Amino acid sequence: MTDTNIARRSLTLLGLGDMGTALARTWLAAGHSLTVWNRTAAKAEALAGTGALVASSPAEAVAANDLVVLCLLDDASIDSALEGTGLDGKGLVNLTTGTPGEGRARAAWAEARGARFVDAGIMATPAMIGAPETGGYVLYSGSRALFDTHRAVLEVPAPARFVGEDPGHAALHDVALLSGMYGMFAGISHAFALIEGEDIAPKDLAPLLSEWLGAMGFFVGNAAERLTSGDFTTGVVSNLAMQVAATGTLLRTASEQGVSTELIDPYFELMRRRLAADRAEHAHEDTAGAITLLRR
Amino acid sequence: MTDTNIARRSLTLLGLGDMGTALARTWLAAGHSLTVWNRTAAKAEALAGTGALVASSPAEAVAANDLVVLCLLDDASIDSALEGTGLDGKGLVNLTTGTPGEGRARAAWAEARGARFVDAGIMATPAMIGAPETGGYVLYSGSRALFDTHRAVLEVPAPARFVGEDPGHAALHDVALLSGMYGMFAGISHAFALIEGEDIAPKDLAPLLSEWLGAMGFFVGNAAERLTSGDFTTGVVSNLAMQVAATGTLLRTASEQGVSTELIDPYFELMRRRLAADRAEHAHEDTAGAITLLRR
Repeated sequence: MTDTNIARRSLTLLGLGDMGTALARTWLAAGHSLTVWNRTAAKAEALAGTGALVASSPAEAVAANDLVVLCLLDDASIDSALEGTGLDGKGLVNLTTGTPGEGRARAAWAEARGARFVDAGIMATPAMIGAPETGGYVLYSGSRALFDTHRAVLEVPAPARFVGEDPGHAALHDVALLSGMYGMFAGISHAFALIEGEDIAPKDLAPLLSEWLGAMGFFVGNAAERLTSGDFTTGVVSNLAMQVAATGTLLRTASEQGVSTELIDPYFELMRRRLAADRAEHAHEDTAGAITLLRR
Repeated sequence: MTDTNIARRSLTLLGLGDMGTALARTWLAAGHSLTVWNRTAAKAEALAGTGALVASSPAEAVAANDLVVLCLLDDASIDSALEGTGLDGKGLVNLTTGTPGEGRARAAWAEARGARFVDAGIMATPAMIGAPETGGYVLYSGSRALFDTHRAVLEVPAPARFVGEDPGHAALHDVALLSGMYGMFAGISHAFALIEGEDIAPKDLAPLLSEWLGAMGFFVGNAAERLTSGDFTTGVVSNLAMQVAATGTLLRTASEQGVSTELIDPYFELMRRRLAADRAEHAHEDTAGAITLLRR
C-alpha cells in the first residue's frame, strides 16, 4: 500500500454522541485509522480500546487527517469546536443536523478557510448505522469532488446518496422526508385513536391501514407530476369539491368517537381554502393543487 | 335454474349518482337482474338501455327484490326515500356514506322494520368499481348472515371485506383509513412545498419520499403493538425527547423556505404535550404514546 492509499483510508471524527459513536465503531471495525475528539473526553477514551486515536483538542484531531467528519450537537457547536483551527486544504464532511441555510452558510465558511465542504443528512438512527439491511442511508450535497474522493470511506457506516452541489440540499431533502413522515405519523395516530374503546384490535386495523397507505402513496408521484406541469385538473380521480364535501363525515366520526380533530383539521382547512379561493377554477382539481398555498 | 336461484341473482339499487351508476353497470354487465330507482329519473332511464328495470318509486323498487342496496347522497336521504315503505323481510345493504353512529342507528331502524342490515364503506372511487386490479374494495359490517347470503353479488363491483357484526364498524374502518391517508397527504404536501423554487425537480424528490414513507410505515405495526400492550418504552428506536428536540430543525427549515408550518405544527405540538405532561415518564417513549392524548 502506498502512502496515498493509507492517507485515503484514515480520517478524523469530531463528536461522539450516540450517532458519532455508532459511526466511529463502523470505521474502526472496517480497519480504518480513526482519530477522534469529543468535548467530554470520556466518550473518546471509551473508543481508544477499540483502536481509535484520541486527540486532545479539535486542532490536533483536524491536523491528523485530510478528511474531517463533523457530527456535533448543532451548527453552533462547529464554531465552538473549530474556532481558530487551520482548515486549509481539508475536506470537511458535516453530519451535524442543521437547516439548508446552515449548510450553505457553513459551506461558505469552510471555503473562506480553504476547505472543501460536503453537508449531509443522516436518514437513520444510530442503531441503523453499520446495518445496511435496515434501509438507512445518508444524503450528501456540496463539493462533488470531495464526495467522490471519499465516497468509499463515507459508505462504511451507511449507503451514500449525493443529491447535488448545493450544500443546502442534503438538509433540505432530509427535512422534507422527515416532515412527510410526521404527517403520515399524524394520520396513523388519528386512525388508531378512532378505534380506541371499540371492539377492534389495533393489530386488526394495522394491516388494512398499511395496505391503504401503501396504495394511496400514489399521491407522491401524482403531486410531483402536477406540480411540474401545473396541471391540476386532467385525469383527476376524486376532485377537490368532492373531497371537501366528504370531510364532514370524517369530522363527525371523530366527534362521535370523542377524538380530537387537531391532527386532521389543518389539511381539511387547506383544501377548503383552495376551494374557496376560486370554486369554479378549483372544484375539479386534484388535491395536489392545495400544495401551492403553503408557500408564503 | 330454480326460482330461488333467480331471486338470489336479482337485486334493487336505490341511488344512481356517480358511484351508484358505476355499481349498476357492473351488476348489469355480469348478467344480474337489476331494478333501479333514482330521485331524478333521467339517470335511471339512461341505464334502462343496458338492461336495468326502472322503478317509478322507491316502494316499487324495494318490492321487486329481497336484496336492496342503498347508495344515496347521505343518511338523511334514506329517510326521504324509504319513509312508509314496507321493509319486512328485506335485506338492506347500505353503501351510503355515513358515520359509525349513523350506521348503528340505521341498523336499529332497519331491525325495527323487520329488515336485516349491513352497512358498508367503499374504499374506492367510481372509476375503481368493476376494476379489481386497482385495489379498491368495500368494507362491510352488521348482519353476518345477510352478508354471507349475498356475498357473491356484493363482490361483483369490488372485493368485499367483512369487519364485524357491529354495524358501525364498516364506517369506522372507512373513516380511520381515510383519516390516515389525509395525514399522509398533509406530510407529502409539506415536503413538496419545501422544495418549491429550489433546483430540485419534484420527480427527483418523489422516489426518495415514496421509499422513505414506505420504510417509515413500520409505525403502523409499531403503534398497534404498543397500544395493545401499553408498553411505549421497550425497544424504542428514537425516543420522544429526541424527536421533540429535532422538530426545531424542521420548523426552522420551513421558515427559511417560506413554507407555512400549519400542516406539521399539530403533531409536533402533540408530541410536546406528551413530553411536558411527565418528562421523566415519557422522555424515553416511542412517539406512539402521544396517540393516547387524542381521545378526549
